[in-house]
Formats: sequence, structure tokens, C-alpha cells
Amino acid sequence: MSVKLDVVQAAELLKKADNVLILTHKNPDGDTLGSGYALMYALHRLGKQACVVCHDLIPQRYSYFDTLHFQQNNVVDFVPQYIVAVDLADTSLLGESLQQYAERVDLCIDHHISNREYAKNLLLSENAAATCELMFDVIEAMQVEIDKQIAECLYTGLVTDTGCFRYPSVTVYTHHVAERLMQAGADTRHIHHVLYENVRREKISLMLAALQSLRYELDGRCAIITLMRDTIQNCGVTEGEPDGLSTIPRDIEGVLVGVTIRQLKNKQGYKISVRTEGTVNASKICHRLGGGGHIAAAGCTISGLPLQEVCSRVLCSVREELDSSELCTLQGEFGTPKK
Amino acid sequence: MSVKLDVVQAAELLKKADNVLILTHKNPDGDTLGSGYALMYALHRLGKQACVVCHDLIPQRYSYFDTLHFQQNNVVDFVPQYIVAVDLADTSLLGESLQQYAERVDLCIDHHISNREYAKNLLLSENAAATCELMFDVIEAMQVEIDKQIAECLYTGLVTDTGCFRYPSVTVYTHHVAERLMQAGADTRHIHHVLYENVRREKISLMLAALQSLRYELDGRCAIITLMRDTIQNCGVTEGEPDGLSTIPRDIEGVLVGVTIRQLKNKQGYKISVRTEGTVNASKICHRLGGGGHIAAAGCTISGLPLQEVCSRVLCSVREELDSSELCTLQGEFGTPKK
Repeated sequence: MSVKLDVVQAAELLKKADNVLILTHKNPDGDTLGSGYALMYALHRLGKQACVVCHDLIPQRYSYFDTLHFQQNNVVDFVPQYIVAVDLADTSLLGESLQQYAERVDLCIDHHISNREYAKNLLLSENAAATCELMFDVIEAMQVEIDKQIAECLYTGLVTDTGCFRYPSVTVYTHHVAERLMQAGADTRHIHHVLYENVRREKISLMLAALQSLRYELDGRCAIITLMRDTIQNCGVTEGEPDGLSTIPRDIEGVLVGVTIRQLKNKQGYKISVRTEGTVNASKICHRLGGGGHIAAAGCTISGLPLQEVCSRVLCSVREELDSSELCTLQGEFGTPKK
Repeated sequence: MSVKLDVVQAAELLKKADNVLILTHKNPDGDTLGSGYALMYALHRLGKQACVVCHDLIPQRYSYFDTLHFQQNNVVDFVPQYIVAVDLADTSLLGESLQQYAERVDLCIDHHISNREYAKNLLLSENAAATCELMFDVIEAMQVEIDKQIAECLYTGLVTDTGCFRYPSVTVYTHHVAERLMQAGADTRHIHHVLYENVRREKISLMLAALQSLRYELDGRCAIITLMRDTIQNCGVTEGEPDGLSTIPRDIEGVLVGVTIRQLKNKQGYKISVRTEGTVNASKICHRLGGGGHIAAAGCTISGLPLQEVCSRVLCSVREELDSSELCTLQGEFGTPKK
């Protein structure tokens, strides 16, 4: 169990610290990197040594955080005296190369309700739309001016973790922070260009393959995309790239459950991603198949079965959940089941 | 020429007016409808009669503005005494059925720099990311409380006209207005669901056809999508639906000019849409082909030629513009041409 801190307490600890090592999660996204780099720069402004590390290579698109620094990635040229983890719900997400720090985290700053409280001290705000939203408060409390560089790091986490201000997690305060970051000089135009107007050709090919495989099931309440390993390889995408496709089937009119079935690298099984709009429980659908997750996004892996059998099992679990959701709707709201 | 007003002056005129007819543009989008309905509700709150009209049927997805009112669309049950046009740059955009009002517009509220000054009075703010952003100020100046209903209309224009707060037009003030509208109770979650998580199956089919037709030209600096009339018809999309696809080719890595070629309904020609990121002049590309538009978005129509010849002419104009852009870069910045 961690000692729970508020923003001011966390800022006080950071102001006292030096030689700070900042841990981000593997498969890094804009929020873990944005909050990590923003904190690093804030500590630099106070004359401290600080450095961000990540198990995985940092995607090229984030190089605007500071290319030079990225080249030195994971080369820590000081002895870490204070270890901070950002946007990291669980130490298993550190990745192998950073496991050495798992038991030594002094402070964790996070917005995941599922945080495992592995750190000595924890600043957790599950209402923050992004860890960057919370980090904005921390840096202000550290009395460091939010300059252009810090603002661009924070804005990156804000825009990526909210799907461009579209997810239900967005609050009045999220827009307030965006406003402040733009005021501080963040070049949002450049950030949007890098993040959203620069899709790799390989990703486009995979999207085509995904749409070609799309089919509707259960009276159109379920849509399924299937990506075989050969297709993924032929498209030449990197490992993380198929992830972005999972929401396509869910976002189609009438679809309550969107499913993406992706053959594993070893071709011995399939990774299933389930997405709903929250009215149907994706976690329960996957739990029956040996997986789990959240209400709107969950997953599981099925191995040793042919594709047809995998599809049939997935659909069976989806149908069961749809039926029980309808029952709940009928009993709870005296309404008619959704069509 | 119109008399130019500021926000307070426009609000004063509206407070004095009654039996107000509000004109929106044809092929209505979230901004013209959102600003129109927000103004209508604001006038209702002041006890006035007011009504929104549109040449085209209002898309079902906007029914949350007020379904009842939508059914009565274009049935004006009072004699209009004051006519306001919103988000309408030119009276040609009124459409046939509203042309009768073209010469009678008392007040225009708009954010298009290309506004033709057809109205007696004009409130124009080309810095506003959406007419709804400007309308927010007008309604505040009218001293009408921004309630949930008005906030939802305004938010709709804000989010649709900025591509979810992503276009270069977004300013600090845009986020400030979003913040205020959420504070006023706008159900942004519902709005996002309706607008972005509810894609018609027909649109998905058309996207598949578009990606199948995608090809790269001029060393990958140009990407072209071609949609033949039979394909469009087979997909069953409505007339406006292909529009949303125009940005796909432009958003691909390395692509400077994205082109969409769409066969006309009569199959006698092709509508060309050109999209750039603003570094290459789309307007000049289309001007050479008999069309025009803006730097980043332009169009033209080519009739009486086979598709192959149309493509060849388009590519020729794209190449000319790319070459001259490179020349400008070379001369202006002493740099090497973009690859």
C-alpha cells in the first residue's frame, strides 16, 4: 500500500529530490512520455539532474520532445537517488530492462483507477483525463513556469489519452488545461500534424485488409475484423500498429460489440480484442474466454483451435452478454431491448 | 457592402428584433445548424418567435437539437420580420428554396474570411474556429443564460468545425468556450457518440472502396482515391457522405497532395477534391483545371474526358505546383527540396 499524497505534497517531495530517474511504461504512449518528459524538464528548470527511461524504443513521432535526449535514452549518467513512475499502473508494465527499479519507486503519479500501489508514495487522480492533466498541476505546484517545451509534452498526453478531447474522461478541467498549454505556447498545429496527419502507408494497407475482412454478426449487433499473421506481415506494420484498428467495428451504426481477431506471431493462436460503448460488458465477454479487462475494452487469447472455432466461441460469449444486457434493460428500465 | 458590427452591437439588434427567421446553408453541417439553433433558443428564452430553416433535410444525427422542431422544419408559422443568416458566406449557399430571402438578410453572423457581405449588417470574426464560437459571445451579450440545450447546439458546431479541436483554427479561446459549454451541462459524451461512434455501414463500404482504389504518384508525394458512380451507388451512400473521405490520402506519411476523384451523378464528368497541409497550394492546382478554393482545400470539375485523361491532367497540375513549391523552398530558405 502506498501513502496517498495530494498535488502539493507530491510537488514538495519533488522539489526536495535530486538525481531523479523517471520511469515510463513499456509500449510507451503520448501520456507516459509526455508526463515523464514534462516532469524531467520541470526538474531541470530547478537545476536538478533528471532523466526519463523506457523499456521500449521511443516512437520517432515523439521526437519533438527533444531528439538529442532521445538518443541518450536509457543511458543514465548519474546515480539515481529518487525514482518516480508516471502513468504506470503496475510494475509489470515497466518491461524487463527496468524491473530492477520495481521495488524502489519513491513516487508514482498516475490516473489509472487500477493502480496497484507499488510505490512508497502515490499521487493518484482517477478523474484526470490523462496523467499529463495531473502533471500540469504538479508542475504548477512546484512553482516552475510552464514554458513551450513543457507545454508541448503535456499537451501530447492530453490529446492522445482523450482521443482528441472526445473520450468520456474529458472534463471541464481538461479543456482548461488545454487552454493554459496553448497560452504557454504549445505548437499544437505541429503536434497534430505529427500525430494525426502522418499515417504510415503500411497502416493504410492494414486498414484496407481489416475492412475487407469485416463482417456483421448477430443481426448487426456485432462486427468482426480478422487479421491473419500473413496479412499483418505482408502489410509490414510494426507490432503496435494493429491496435488502433480495434475501434473501427465498434463505431459502426447499430454495432454494440466490436471484435478484432488477430493471429499471434507464432500462428498457434489468436488475440481477441473486444470493444463496446459501455452498455455491454466487454470484460465479461472476455472473462468467459479466459481473459479480462474493462467494461468498454477487454481482451483474451485463444490458442490451439482453428479460426472458425475461435470465432464461434467468441460469438457465443458475445451473444450471451448481449442477451443478459437486454434482460437487464428489460428488467431495469421496463423498456424494449435495443435492436 | 455590409455595415460591420461588433458582438455587442449584434446582440443589441437581436434583442430588439422579433419574429426572427434564421437561415442556414445548404448541405448543412454542425456549425450552421448548431449556431442557428442556439440563436433560436436564445431568442425563445427572451420570449420571441424564432425559427431555423434550411434548404436540405437536416441529417438525422442532429436530431438531439430538438426532434419536434425538426419535423416542423421550413414551416414558418409567423411572418418573418427580421432575417438572420448564420455561417453563410454567400447567398448562393442558401439553396433554391431559400433564395427568396437572399436580398433581405438583416444580419449575418459568420467566421468565413470569404464572406460576400450580402447582409445589411455583418458580424464577422475570421479568428473564430467556428461560427458557434462567435455565437457563444453573441448569446452572452444578449444576456441569455447558456443552458444545456443552447450549450449542446454550440458545442456541436465547435467540435465538428474543428475536427475535434485539431484544426489550425483552434485557439486558446476555443478551449475556453468548450470549457464553458461543458460547465453549462452539454452532454458531450452523447454528442460524440452520435457524431463519431455511429458510422453508417454504407460509409464503411465506401471507405473500403476508396482504400482499394488508392494509389501513390509522383514519388509518393501525391495520393489519389478514385470513386466511380457505380461504386458510390452500390455502397448506397447519401450525397454528402463521400466528402469525409477527402482527407484520407492527404494524411498519409510523405503525401503532400491528396486527391479524390469522384464520378459525377450523370457520369459525364468528374469532381476533383484536392487537399494539402498548406505547404502546397491546392487552390492553384485546381485553378489551372478551372476550379478554385483555399490553400489547403480546393476543387474543380472536369467533364467530357475519360478517367485516364482526367487523372493525367490532375497529376500534371499537381506536379507543376509541387515543382514550384520546391523552387520557392530553395529560393526562400536555401534548403533542399522536400522529398
